[in-house]
Amino acid sequence: MSEQTPLDLPEGDPFGPHNLPYGVFTPAGSAERRVGVRLGAAVLDAGAAAAALGSPYVSLLARPSLGPLLAAGRTAWRDVRRALTAWVTVPAHREVLEPLFFPLSAVTLHLPFEVADYVDFYSSEHHARHLGKIFRPDGEPLTPNWKHLPIGYHGRAGTVVVSGTDVVRPRGQRKAPSDPAPVFGPSARLDIETEVAFVVGVPSALGTPVPLSAFRDHVFGLCLLNDWSARDIQGWENVPLGPFLGKSFATSLSAWVTPLEALDAARVRPPERSHDLLPYLDDTAGDAADEPAGYDLRLSVEVNGHPVAEPPFSTMYWTAAQQLAHMTVGGASLRTGDLYASGTVSGPERHQYGSLIELTWNGRDPLDLPGGRRTFLEDGDEVVLTGWAPGPDGTRVGLGEVRGRIAPAIVPAV
Amino acid sequence: MSEQTPLDLPEGDPFGPHNLPYGVFTPAGSAERRVGVRLGAAVLDAGAAAAALGSPYVSLLARPSLGPLLAAGRTAWRDVRRALTAWVTVPAHREVLEPLFFPLSAVTLHLPFEVADYVDFYSSEHHARHLGKIFRPDGEPLTPNWKHLPIGYHGRAGTVVVSGTDVVRPRGQRKAPSDPAPVFGPSARLDIETEVAFVVGVPSALGTPVPLSAFRDHVFGLCLLNDWSARDIQGWENVPLGPFLGKSFATSLSAWVTPLEALDAARVRPPERSHDLLPYLDDTAGDAADEPAGYDLRLSVEVNGHPVAEPPFSTMYWTAAQQLAHMTVGGASLRTGDLYASGTVSGPERHQYGSLIELTWNGRDPLDLPGGRRTFLEDGDEVVLTGWAPGPDGTRVGLGEVRGRIAPAIVPAV
Repeated sequence: MSEQTPLDLPEGDPFGPHNLPYGVFTPAGSAERRVGVRLGAAVLDAGAAAAALGSPYVSLLARPSLGPLLAAGRTAWRDVRRALTAWVTVPAHREVLEPLFFPLSAVTLHLPFEVADYVDFYSSEHHARHLGKIFRPDGEPLTPNWKHLPIGYHGRAGTVVVSGTDVVRPRGQRKAPSDPAPVFGPSARLDIETEVAFVVGVPSALGTPVPLSAFRDHVFGLCLLNDWSARDIQGWENVPLGPFLGKSFATSLSAWVTPLEALDAARVRPPERSHDLLPYLDDTAGDAADEPAGYDLRLSVEVNGHPVAEPPFSTMYWTAAQQLAHMTVGGASLRTGDLYASGTVSGPERHQYGSLIELTWNGRDPLDLPGGRRTFLEDGDEVVLTGWAPGPDGTRVGLGEVRGRIAPAIVPAV
Repeated sequence: MSEQTPLDLPEGDPFGPHNLPYGVFTPAGSAERRVGVRLGAAVLDAGAAAAALGSPYVSLLARPSLGPLLAAGRTAWRDVRRALTAWVTVPAHREVLEPLFFPLSAVTLHLPFEVADYVDFYSSEHHARHLGKIFRPDGEPLTPNWKHLPIGYHGRAGTVVVSGTDVVRPRGQRKAPSDPAPVFGPSARLDIETEVAFVVGVPSALGTPVPLSAFRDHVFGLCLLNDWSARDIQGWENVPLGPFLGKSFATSLSAWVTPLEALDAARVRPPERSHDLLPYLDDTAGDAADEPAGYDLRLSVEVNGHPVAEPPFSTMYWTAAQQLAHMTVGGASLRTGDLYASGTVSGPERHQYGSLIELTWNGRDPLDLPGGRRTFLEDGDEVVLTGWAPGPDGTRVGLGEVRGRIAPAIVPAV
């Protein structure tokens, strides 16, 4: 009997062999980035494993980034995943693999790929209605276009940071309606946005739309994402061209990319559509209806260790396949590493709201947390997003967490 | 007497030795990208020149991209420019250099660097007022924030294309107020936006604002840019999160980056500020007032060879230094290759408007061009942006052109 190793996970571990998310890590004492595959609370040096086992996938796995694997395409994704599954489940490989595992506590995790373009959508009907009611209490909560297309905008790719990175409170201009002129200072309304982000692997050519049916040929996997938002900065700058500095200071991404293949058991139909959709977005007929692109992901939000919400991703009105079809229908090309996020995930019930602006109804109803009352985030607060999805045979597929602590605003020496 | 060579430019050529913009090219028959420096109608293989002359700058110039030079910083930018100036002006180097020139007609020009993040501002007061008057004829043309901060948003970096690339007319959703539901099809209101884009060389750290005074430590140079816009697609999608598919299908960039050092004689104070500015944007006092960051660039727009406008960049309300200070004041970091554009450049007079929506007043007053009447662009139309700036001693500094032809919308085979 060998002693307990990462290959002896207890039954039902959400990061068992049915999951196998990918990341990039450096072991303690090393500067070399390596592709890792998570198993339980350990990470397998996937490139070293491929080399040790004489696998042809060493060219995709013995790399400092997931980029080459992302670009390799759906057949390669499937074949590499099959190989990894065999490696961690066939007892004959134990002796070779065991030395290639590192405890998560002994590695540094990095952004797993270089983010090309970052797009953020606004695809939860509940979230959009809540914000509409807060900001336009006497008007129609949804804008007229909302049910016809997935509203989205480009964010700043260069400030996507890996989970665990401190988030410095941004400074900026804000102006309350009662202020005679804008004031400058640290944001007083720093918020979270609980989101799910999709990772593009296979590029597309400029001028060529990607139809709904090609979603899984281009998208490799998904991650949890926290799109930190400074509501006061955003409120003042937002009209006429949308969010800019209110969102650009940091976006936190999980260190682990869950392949879509691990989530097949979690696929669900999106909510009933209340409006007819144009053909390029219509997922109620044909292939798109047979291959639903909703995902039943159960998300959780904790602030300072206290659970504050459980947003259900299955309630999202627009799917990731529709978002991709929309993003490219005008001819915009995709690149390996493009990242697009769902927008805040919120369900209909108050304990399902994915942002503090909803949970506190714009500060009117503070949250009483054990560490103190909160409307928006205070310096030192730590936010953790977690999630899981139904896996095969009653298992759970764990999603890599997104963790971030608020550091005080920096006042530059001038 | 040697025969006429690129080193024997006529006096007063706007691409003379006082200019020396950088690009990336491949000679006919080669696949190897090389850094080039333009002189007249020829391009010098700068890496080969550095190698032949034993220059230490071979490590920055014998590269397939401008990236390493951009990242090298202001002292290196100055030293490399001094070296290049000496090479093309000192007769002793003629024999070595002459074989390293290629006529522009015999090379392919590429995007000179990998665009990291792309930001588009909205910094012409005239342009913003014109659009305000067109779309809100009964309201205040400028939004309340306009005079307090440079409005901007992130665009799609992956669809920035080099001058000369055809632009495929985008398809998408649009909805006129009289339409009962959105319709889908090729944009019927395809427009140009005449802009100037600034190229970031030196990165900055996350959480650390870049003050006005550090503008020239980070920004290497500028380019002309055409931010093609589908007004009908943009009009339907724009509220509440700003432009997305109306702009993401293509953005054309000049193949030539003009170093800011070549434009010292063109520096001008921006227009008088009508509102007090917060300190981080205040360029009316201190170093910022002594180092004006406005540029007297004279732009020209041609459609099918017919001049339609001459937008004056000196009229821009917000400078590139203010845009950079604003973009980073919340802590957003910069990367080498970040590109940020001015927004449409328009002057107060009708012949100075930088977009067709202004020139035709949203289609009400068509332009009569020799090839036919135009409101917006038709398939086959070719748009060319050119420009120049006052150089030293009465010279002109030519800016690299931006050329693009409209190709018909692609109807995908489904």
